[in-house]
Amino acid sequence: MTKPLKLGVAGLGTVGSGLLQLIETHGERLAAVLPRPLAVEAVSARTRGKDRGVCLDRMRWFDDPVALASDEGIDVFVELIGGEDGPAKASVEAALGAGKHVVTANKALLAKHGVALARLAEEHGVALNFEAAVAGGIPAIKTMREAFLPNNVARVYGILNGTCNYILTVMEEAGRSFEDVLREAQEKGYAEADPTFDVGGFDAGHKLALMTSLAFGTEVAADEIHVEGIESITQADIEAAGDLGYRIKLLGVAIETPSGIEARVNPTLVPKHSAIAEVSGVTNCVALEGDFTGPLLLVGPGAGGGPTAAAVASDIVDVARGIVLPPFITAAERLKPHRRAKIDEHCGAYYLRLSLRDEPGAMAGIAKCMGDEGVSLESVVQRREFKALPGSGKPTAPGAPATVIMVTHETTEDAIRKAVASIDRDEMVTERPQVIRIEKL
Amino acid sequence: MTKPLKLGVAGLGTVGSGLLQLIETHGERLAAVLPRPLAVEAVSARTRGKDRGVCLDRMRWFDDPVALASDEGIDVFVELIGGEDGPAKASVEAALGAGKHVVTANKALLAKHGVALARLAEEHGVALNFEAAVAGGIPAIKTMREAFLPNNVARVYGILNGTCNYILTVMEEAGRSFEDVLREAQEKGYAEADPTFDVGGFDAGHKLALMTSLAFGTEVAADEIHVEGIESITQADIEAAGDLGYRIKLLGVAIETPSGIEARVNPTLVPKHSAIAEVSGVTNCVALEGDFTGPLLLVGPGAGGGPTAAAVASDIVDVARGIVLPPFITAAERLKPHRRAKIDEHCGAYYLRLSLRDEPGAMAGIAKCMGDEGVSLESVVQRREFKALPGSGKPTAPGAPATVIMVTHETTEDAIRKAVASIDRDEMVTERPQVIRIEKL
Repeated sequence: MTKPLKLGVAGLGTVGSGLLQLIETHGERLAAVLPRPLAVEAVSARTRGKDRGVCLDRMRWFDDPVALASDEGIDVFVELIGGEDGPAKASVEAALGAGKHVVTANKALLAKHGVALARLAEEHGVALNFEAAVAGGIPAIKTMREAFLPNNVARVYGILNGTCNYILTVMEEAGRSFEDVLREAQEKGYAEADPTFDVGGFDAGHKLALMTSLAFGTEVAADEIHVEGIESITQADIEAAGDLGYRIKLLGVAIETPSGIEARVNPTLVPKHSAIAEVSGVTNCVALEGDFTGPLLLVGPGAGGGPTAAAVASDIVDVARGIVLPPFITAAERLKPHRRAKIDEHCGAYYLRLSLRDEPGAMAGIAKCMGDEGVSLESVVQRREFKALPGSGKPTAPGAPATVIMVTHETTEDAIRKAVASIDRDEMVTERPQVIRIEKL
Repeated sequence: MTKPLKLGVAGLGTVGSGLLQLIETHGERLAAVLPRPLAVEAVSARTRGKDRGVCLDRMRWFDDPVALASDEGIDVFVELIGGEDGPAKASVEAALGAGKHVVTANKALLAKHGVALARLAEEHGVALNFEAAVAGGIPAIKTMREAFLPNNVARVYGILNGTCNYILTVMEEAGRSFEDVLREAQEKGYAEADPTFDVGGFDAGHKLALMTSLAFGTEVAADEIHVEGIESITQADIEAAGDLGYRIKLLGVAIETPSGIEARVNPTLVPKHSAIAEVSGVTNCVALEGDFTGPLLLVGPGAGGGPTAAAVASDIVDVARGIVLPPFITAAERLKPHRRAKIDEHCGAYYLRLSLRDEPGAMAGIAKCMGDEGVSLESVVQRREFKALPGSGKPTAPGAPATVIMVTHETTEDAIRKAVASIDRDEMVTERPQVIRIEKL
């Protein structure tokens, strides 16, 4: 028997336990098709006694993941601890420094320190694989690093956060409010007690930062991503979007423009009759557009123990096959700085929802504000009320504000912002206008 | 500069020309991120003079692809000639025998000789890559060979023929007949003059044979695929399916059952609200279901010069990176024989469309035939007429046959066939009953 590939696994939560179960279940089959069998040599976690569904007796135990990372008995260090700094960072650095391959699912770590860690991996000629860090069970990283490499990427985008997609799906299907669905998601364990990281778009922003780097050969720059969450999306938006033939999704989108990289996470209107509109619940997707391939869409589970463990295992499989690629395709020292495009220069169509005062000339005033900024309208719908929502608190009495939905032709973010600012300033509306970008697919 | 990877390209049709254009366009960028630059050293095609959008002056010309295949000046032989035997087979064998890596887009060749060629490649320690042979620009092969490897595959399926999907899409959107849309597709060049290979499901069968082998570790057995085409699909089926919440797609589906591999290409009802239902026109998709990852769906262009050339280029990129894997994952000599499951044992729900004679007791007779075979019905809809179709020739006069649409609960193919046979035998219907499988997604 050939020498096994010895793994040290740090972090035995859902993903870590899932990985051990996967190797127990499929280790023999994998050994038959790989140059080397996989063997979990050692593990590290916070508590030792917990039942993880696998027997740890034949694995060495480390209390300290950093000690495990540089232990001479292992070939690959698998980091499943989490966190952008602390033991995750220290152990990954120790492993790479000791010439071990590293496989990690830690998007926060990579979004913050990805380039430095990639440089370290390249110096030591080892792998730094992170398939599980972006879109869970979807092979987004492998596809970008390998299959799609012959293309110049024109745009990369995706539904990158399962919590948000679940909330938007249930809001539409059950006609319920954001707050209500979020509360239920928290009870079911789909959303964190502090949901900001998910519903505010920051988690998707980390993933988009990694994909942007792979797509455009730039340094990872999570701070340069324009992030908007789904907190402001109301049932009125979902219904109006539906009537217009759209569905609302939280997308991460990156394109390269003459002024730099436009990378943003934002609620977006996508056409109902598109495959991406049918990506529902906690499912994620990643779309790539290439100059030769055209559009490619990958749809799959974005999180969960099984899918994430399988993604981690696929990274280990690559190492067992001797596949070691530069983590971000381009050598870390040659990645271009991330030059951020001004969001003001974003071009596209927009959806606007306004609560118009019930006053003569109000609509004419709105139209003038739009016209003054050169924004032309594709459609305008004014409605006194939307379907009654339990607890939505929408006034439906005569004299109450009217909801006006507008869809613009293609224009710039700058023009929309100025138009909306002047609408706001002139007090034509009773609440802050809702502005949502429409993504051309 | 490191030694380039020297390519010999045989076949300069749409894909071959596309590949040369891709390398001309992206060669420099690829050289910056690959261990070796790509260089087209020599080419072979039937006619020399034709304009292919790239300058061939610095490439050596071969009239004979077999001579090119074993020429000592090349490292990789790229076979884009086509055909299951003849020069394609001879040149691929020559290349592998001479220790050259082979990249091919030729599904017919692989469906017939894949295992023998894989054995030859493995003997010589070279790659036999065929990403472009299945679903064009979709990285189906790489995903199965690499990313999805940690999973046991429960089912693999897809929309594998763009011509059929285009025809079905236009039939639905424009309410036109199969014959009418086929004729137009032929005029536009989307369908061959003899369309049997596409619309009869055989092309999809070849692709499914390759995917089946990768999914279940079996020998490639194109002859063992159960193949049904889309010729019998009528506007009445498309409308009735739509009313029931389904869309009709030609799917290739493979699962492993206790009695063997059930692999079939057949028209299928898929739920309208699924991503696969929104895969329209010439777009293809490939779906994998794994025990750890769950469902993964890849959607992209199934054919065309650009996407296919990009898939070929991605195979070349792998060779440049030194990635050489067994073509069918498992070593060719250890692939299991393909044991075919009896289609009679297929379990699932069915859609039936019957033209019922306008006679008392006809419906009761139908219901009895179903009941006698233990088939229970989820829904029955009887309609005197469907939407009038120009030229559909459907009689709508009183006394004319009534269209009855039935959806069964889960049952076996055997039971359905027997029930339909007895309905037919008893002359309760005026034309052959339409039977379409419903795929659970």
